[in-house]
Amino acid sequence: MPDSGKCSLDVVFNPRSIAVVGASAEEKKSGAKWVSGLVKAGYKGSIYPVSTNGGRIAGLDIASSLSAIQGEVDYVIASVPARFALGLVEECVEKGVKVIQFFTAGFSETGLSDGKQLERQMLETARAAGLRIIGPNCVGSYCPETRISYGPVPDGKVGKAGDVAFISQSGGVGGKLVEDGIARQINFSKGISLGNGIDLDAADFFEYFAADPKTNAIAAYLEGTRNGHKLFRALLTAATAKPTVVWKGGRTEAGAAAARSHTGSLASSAPVWSGMLRQSGAIEARNLEEMTDCLLLLQKLGLRRMSNIAVVGGLADGGGGISVSGSDACNDNRLCVPTLTSTTRNRLQELIGEVGSILINPVDVSPAQFRGMDVLYEAIRTVTQDPGIDVVVIQEDMDIMLSFLGQPETDQVNHFLQGISAETGMPLVMVMPHGANEPERNVVEQHLLEAGIPVMPTMARAARALAMLAQRPTRAPATSALQ
Amino acid sequence: MPDSGKCSLDVVFNPRSIAVVGASAEEKKSGAKWVSGLVKAGYKGSIYPVSTNGGRIAGLDIASSLSAIQGEVDYVIASVPARFALGLVEECVEKGVKVIQFFTAGFSETGLSDGKQLERQMLETARAAGLRIIGPNCVGSYCPETRISYGPVPDGKVGKAGDVAFISQSGGVGGKLVEDGIARQINFSKGISLGNGIDLDAADFFEYFAADPKTNAIAAYLEGTRNGHKLFRALLTAATAKPTVVWKGGRTEAGAAAARSHTGSLASSAPVWSGMLRQSGAIEARNLEEMTDCLLLLQKLGLRRMSNIAVVGGLADGGGGISVSGSDACNDNRLCVPTLTSTTRNRLQELIGEVGSILINPVDVSPAQFRGMDVLYEAIRTVTQDPGIDVVVIQEDMDIMLSFLGQPETDQVNHFLQGISAETGMPLVMVMPHGANEPERNVVEQHLLEAGIPVMPTMARAARALAMLAQRPTRAPATSALQ
Repeated sequence: MPDSGKCSLDVVFNPRSIAVVGASAEEKKSGAKWVSGLVKAGYKGSIYPVSTNGGRIAGLDIASSLSAIQGEVDYVIASVPARFALGLVEECVEKGVKVIQFFTAGFSETGLSDGKQLERQMLETARAAGLRIIGPNCVGSYCPETRISYGPVPDGKVGKAGDVAFISQSGGVGGKLVEDGIARQINFSKGISLGNGIDLDAADFFEYFAADPKTNAIAAYLEGTRNGHKLFRALLTAATAKPTVVWKGGRTEAGAAAARSHTGSLASSAPVWSGMLRQSGAIEARNLEEMTDCLLLLQKLGLRRMSNIAVVGGLADGGGGISVSGSDACNDNRLCVPTLTSTTRNRLQELIGEVGSILINPVDVSPAQFRGMDVLYEAIRTVTQDPGIDVVVIQEDMDIMLSFLGQPETDQVNHFLQGISAETGMPLVMVMPHGANEPERNVVEQHLLEAGIPVMPTMARAARALAMLAQRPTRAPATSALQ
Repeated sequence: MPDSGKCSLDVVFNPRSIAVVGASAEEKKSGAKWVSGLVKAGYKGSIYPVSTNGGRIAGLDIASSLSAIQGEVDYVIASVPARFALGLVEECVEKGVKVIQFFTAGFSETGLSDGKQLERQMLETARAAGLRIIGPNCVGSYCPETRISYGPVPDGKVGKAGDVAFISQSGGVGGKLVEDGIARQINFSKGISLGNGIDLDAADFFEYFAADPKTNAIAAYLEGTRNGHKLFRALLTAATAKPTVVWKGGRTEAGAAAARSHTGSLASSAPVWSGMLRQSGAIEARNLEEMTDCLLLLQKLGLRRMSNIAVVGGLADGGGGISVSGSDACNDNRLCVPTLTSTTRNRLQELIGEVGSILINPVDVSPAQFRGMDVLYEAIRTVTQDPGIDVVVIQEDMDIMLSFLGQPETDQVNHFLQGISAETGMPLVMVMPHGANEPERNVVEQHLLEAGIPVMPTMARAARALAMLAQRPTRAPATSALQ
């Protein structure tokens, strides 16, 4: 059996050529969408559509078979019915293909015995010849750097290249990570959806990403494993090297039942998984939002000390209730919101006065709006310079800002927040709820993200994500990666 | 002391005239913004700006004092420094004003003894003459029906009139409810922000809204109370009459400390509050999102039986991981996701086949996309007709829909979802995450809301809100109101 070492997986994300087998000339078919996506994405290697029916798709001739292709084929994407899968594996071996990923479903996940048998035969044939398999029942590879789009998306949408890698047993969850990544500037180095994972599995990619120089944090959505010991060792390697966030789908009884029909995984119980994650040093997420929020913090702020939190509210509105509930959210998540130093508090009192103010921490800066933008700026800047604070969470409501202040002053505030972050080096986390002014909010969110400031939609989610990092298992070195 | 009965509070939401005292001719000042807001909102009664400096604002002459106004003044909004508050109360008594609300801060919430004393004097003067006070340190009244905008918002933004009333001790939280209401079509009958609540307090408004024929559900953000027994009795009245959702700010130690500086409330401990809410039959929310999500369900679906939930995913993407995590979210919230009947499952199997499918519940309809829109429609419709199901939660990701299907087919899906809801009478809850296609997403969200289908941003929030209703305290009659 050939080595499943790290280097061999480079071809998954940087193949010289990709053949899409089952690439119909009919634009609505998955194979056709896959080809169009790669072309639109601007994938730099050679793209070979393959179908016995021939024809053209996305400006390319469709080859009648793999062997009819003149050049070498590194990577095959298979979008063919399951009954052709074994024959295709044999063709790949003949052609000298390195990796084949099967979008094709209809194997062990159906629970039928012939699905399992087919998988075994494919695996034996592939292994004997050194061909690696991804899937079946998966969406496979995603790589912004080499412009490999994710799945049969005709628009070939690809996010910016970044330093977070993902592993997903679910193609759909992989797709959500890609989409969320684009929307929130969580920029991925690479991503892989594994489906049934009969050959290459999550453990292989944990090890690969642990060593990948372009990856500084790792996220994984897992439903189960066929080899718990292998997975644990790989997870330990990954989490020791880089912050690693794992979301276990099928944590609960009902979820586990659904997982059995999905990827054919025998899901272990939630406590077993939580224990394994803790022991390996991985951070456990309970759902998509917790995972993406945590990744955003890791990518924008790095794995630094963020235990002592200041909470600022009232940028335009009355910030009292928001400050109170901000405290509650931090307390719910066992985060420390320490009293600011007397120097900070005295300066705040000078700036915004005592009337209706909350200055201990949280800080309600709402009285500042009556004193002008420079006072608001100075008040927030003062909080960022408190020596007892590691990170400042700012609650900003764009709807209320626009109502009370109007667009020019709202822009001014968001502009100086970026300045404060750059100038003081204090990590900021913005809480900006979705609302009635989404276009305006989105423009500001994208600017803040570009300035390296993570943006969360609710205080509860900001507090939860900060707590996931602050309370992460200590097995992994605290500051090994990112920043 | 005059009766604080229900009828007398009508004037808070339907005054014949409003005087804004402290209405500067300078547009940037709060008093001026308040006048502009009422004018822009289209408030139908008379608006009288008042300031000793005179001048004009928003096309209206500014009267030099209350007594200089020719007509009767029902309602006064005070935006003056605290030192003028007592004098203004005396003027109101002279003029025969019915209610005065003080935006003015600087009273008991400062913790200073003269603030408290001033409040006592204002209250004595007012009570002796039958004048009622709202606040101080509050934003006061909001009423979409009579076009009273909320606070000094120059754009005079007002949401649609609906059947949910809110009470908030925090002006800022009231503002967030107003904004969220506009963004998500949570349509309010009336709203009140009380601040320090030295005269009219939360209990008065619970009783008023319990009897208000235009209100079918009540929401409250409370930080504390000066009279626990009165509050409990009023809460009991409210929750017995109508579904009542209470969010207690300052639940935690840190939050309670912030609350003391905010509204001067002596916050009791979280268990005491939770116990009181449970005994009164009120539903407890832990943050703004829980409260607004719950209100949206109440308003769009009513307080009906929603214990047995079907979860549908995979409208365009692979719905496996989404189904698994949907199960987890329901299980986390102790919601029942029952196995669908064999009739339903057989029909689904006919429609979408066995390959890669999850048909027990959750249902992954993703294979349907390869068979056409009519199959997808029929599959979802089949789930809504299962006799063991009370509500169907549909997970739809617009980013993925647009990527895989394009705009026309995405529109088609959202159109037929509205049709299914109308045709079958089965309550639907949509889960539509925010993402990279916000304008398109927002158009669909607004259409769905108009069709009476609540839209949630995450599965976790949908499950939590459904659980809040399904597991509400049983003291209140189960189906007394709404629907």
